[in-house]
Amino acid sequence: MFKKILIANRGEIAMRIIRTCKEMGIKTVAVYSKADEESLHVRFADEAVCIGPAPSSQSYLKIPNIIAAAEITNADAIHPGYGFLSENAKFSRICAEHDIKFIGASGEHIEKMGDKATAKETMKKAGVPTIPGSEGLLKDVQDAKKTAKKMGYPVMIKATAGGGGKGMRAIFSEEQLESAFESAVQEALAAFGNGGMYMEKLIEEPRHIEIQIIGDQYGNACHLSERDCSIQRRHQKLTEETPSPFMTDSLRDAMGEAAIRAAKYIKYEGAGTVEFLVDKHREFYFMEMNTRIQVEHPITEQVVDYDLIREQILVAGGVPISGKNYYPKLHSIECRINAEDPYNDFRPSPGRITTLHPPGGHGVRLDTHVYSGYTIPPNYDSMIAKLITSAQTREEAINKMKRALEEFVIEGVKTTIPFHRQLMEHPDYLAGNYTTKFMEDFEIKPEEE
Amino acid sequence: MFKKILIANRGEIAMRIIRTCKEMGIKTVAVYSKADEESLHVRFADEAVCIGPAPSSQSYLKIPNIIAAAEITNADAIHPGYGFLSENAKFSRICAEHDIKFIGASGEHIEKMGDKATAKETMKKAGVPTIPGSEGLLKDVQDAKKTAKKMGYPVMIKATAGGGGKGMRAIFSEEQLESAFESAVQEALAAFGNGGMYMEKLIEEPRHIEIQIIGDQYGNACHLSERDCSIQRRHQKLTEETPSPFMTDSLRDAMGEAAIRAAKYIKYEGAGTVEFLVDKHREFYFMEMNTRIQVEHPITEQVVDYDLIREQILVAGGVPISGKNYYPKLHSIECRINAEDPYNDFRPSPGRITTLHPPGGHGVRLDTHVYSGYTIPPNYDSMIAKLITSAQTREEAINKMKRALEEFVIEGVKTTIPFHRQLMEHPDYLAGNYTTKFMEDFEIKPEEE
Repeated sequence: MFKKILIANRGEIAMRIIRTCKEMGIKTVAVYSKADEESLHVRFADEAVCIGPAPSSQSYLKIPNIIAAAEITNADAIHPGYGFLSENAKFSRICAEHDIKFIGASGEHIEKMGDKATAKETMKKAGVPTIPGSEGLLKDVQDAKKTAKKMGYPVMIKATAGGGGKGMRAIFSEEQLESAFESAVQEALAAFGNGGMYMEKLIEEPRHIEIQIIGDQYGNACHLSERDCSIQRRHQKLTEETPSPFMTDSLRDAMGEAAIRAAKYIKYEGAGTVEFLVDKHREFYFMEMNTRIQVEHPITEQVVDYDLIREQILVAGGVPISGKNYYPKLHSIECRINAEDPYNDFRPSPGRITTLHPPGGHGVRLDTHVYSGYTIPPNYDSMIAKLITSAQTREEAINKMKRALEEFVIEGVKTTIPFHRQLMEHPDYLAGNYTTKFMEDFEIKPEEE
Repeated sequence: MFKKILIANRGEIAMRIIRTCKEMGIKTVAVYSKADEESLHVRFADEAVCIGPAPSSQSYLKIPNIIAAAEITNADAIHPGYGFLSENAKFSRICAEHDIKFIGASGEHIEKMGDKATAKETMKKAGVPTIPGSEGLLKDVQDAKKTAKKMGYPVMIKATAGGGGKGMRAIFSEEQLESAFESAVQEALAAFGNGGMYMEKLIEEPRHIEIQIIGDQYGNACHLSERDCSIQRRHQKLTEETPSPFMTDSLRDAMGEAAIRAAKYIKYEGAGTVEFLVDKHREFYFMEMNTRIQVEHPITEQVVDYDLIREQILVAGGVPISGKNYYPKLHSIECRINAEDPYNDFRPSPGRITTLHPPGGHGVRLDTHVYSGYTIPPNYDSMIAKLITSAQTREEAINKMKRALEEFVIEGVKTTIPFHRQLMEHPDYLAGNYTTKFMEDFEIKPEEE
């Protein structure tokens, strides 16, 4: 097993990895930027190396500095966490070249899954359902009609140069298609100077449901059930839960099997997540695969009694997995506590935390790197804590989250706690009745005093 | 179900109960002494009533004040926690007379189990093994010989007026008995002016292992497996774990069955704990029954996914239990963090906590009522936090505890954290090889810097 692991990350995930390393008797090396000198991960690691100034490009993303830190400290492995270099094929390969085990995916796997088009092709070959779409651009409205007929309505037409919903139309029937196609082309031309259009199946009432998988060096792979991450704002997940309130046993089996098929097809090693969109008919479609640990991994840990970071390390060290799948025994919810102002368009709110009182007690887990007196630097992601509750039922887990959010005191910066409090009272959330569109209609109410 | 519960306690257990009440949608009333005005339980409860000055006799033990607080606030139930009035038969009866549900044992049950001699007689009748002993005092050395022969060596002879080990002898054979008896009588006469002696079976290498039970109003009772509380100092538990490293499946079944027999015999309602001594031959003997929640209840909650406070409330409200027993699915350890100086005979160390940084992350639970800036009053028990870790194996739970203790920063007062750190490194503890005598030989080492 590894003797010393360098953690090429910061914040709560650096703390998370250091904790498991300590529990496994593995020494740790923290790396940090000048802006992170006061960070807990620097204090808790056995060694710490400053790798550059605040901008990530000059520190957390600077491969030579990180490799140098690993060589100086004689680390035999690097854990990249999530974000930063965790899905950087070049970094994975450079680690291998320097005989440092990268606790993550191989360069090849990262490349295969990092490019969306390649990933989709690979998954099709593996027999994993993907979102049906046109082969390249639509030639004209006739081509559009033919394509739509083949994949079945409703469909989406999208401008290839598009963004922000411009040149995009949801089409529910052939009658609608003709005029919509022309107006979308005109809109795209006006906005981007490019009228090229492609078509995708419209996913009705989409949910973002992902399957956690883990594969070992011997071709074994298992799944650890799902996480429902549909509550998103501008593609940023805000809260996650497992099991998904939308899940059925047969859907879980089908999605789990598809995720394992994906992993086995590419002989995937390590922890990974296969993200799917699930429509209102419970049809699921591959979206992308993340070849790293996810922010929301703790909810899986809570319901299957599993330490995913530990397993990542073990699998990287050549330990085989049992191959059996894991099913939720409890219900668990995570709220991402961000230093953002939910009353001001979730604008980042860095600064000094003057008071921090964390919640605790039965069924409450807190993963954080901040403390009273800590100054949140403006340079990085605004997530400052992950609050996780677990209980026998969804209702109890929600009630536990409500009381934990009530206990949680953070002063000096704005946080998303008021948002989460209101979410936990929202009738659609309580009913488990939400899709990825949920936040489009969500309006935050003034907080009661 | 109850609408409002008054918590007749303070400290972490008051917080613990408030948390579950909030999760159940039940309003809470805190009571507090003048010394506890700054306590978190006062802040987190929906209402708070000051019931008198610092000395417990004038506040937390003052029944009229507590009943008055319940009546003023219209509370329909009282949860007594542990200690204070939790095993006070009079209080239980007065609550009943005032039509306030006491979330604990009936006056009759408290009396039956509160007096050690009565409890032992009751358990004998219920068919629960008790420590064999002489019927009253030994007449002379011949009577002693006869009694010892009947119960089998080794035995203890003890002065009826005794204390502090005076007039007490462990006897391993009849040869030894004659001279030992005479010298013990002389010692007792000299020390207490009373040479009366009685005899008990000597429990070899005793372990304190207790069984958590719960009974409902319909005569159902179940057990939730054991807690090993053998690590004690002057009968104060310091750390507890479940499962006991000494446990076997058949012993658990036998002890669990005996505990249920005890509960059913007296038609026990609510949560309770049957404490046993277990000798090196895995024979177990009833010690006492606690008719209340125990300090160490969280480790049971962690391994059986059960909220014991919730169940107490449900059962008090007339909800039946399922009747099935609960078996540990994980391993859990609790360290009691006391404001005491382990380098100075565990002397209490009240005062202001200048800095508090709690541990967190995977498998860590913290139950506490203290925070940075809180002043620990000198009037009460010195326990300030319960740190609980859980994992799939004992080794992992210990490693998790080690890293959580390392993370835990409390400045301003002395705490037992250094003791626990050393305990978690002790070869006998690591081997699970300890008895209630463990602390007699434990010597704390100077802490490394």
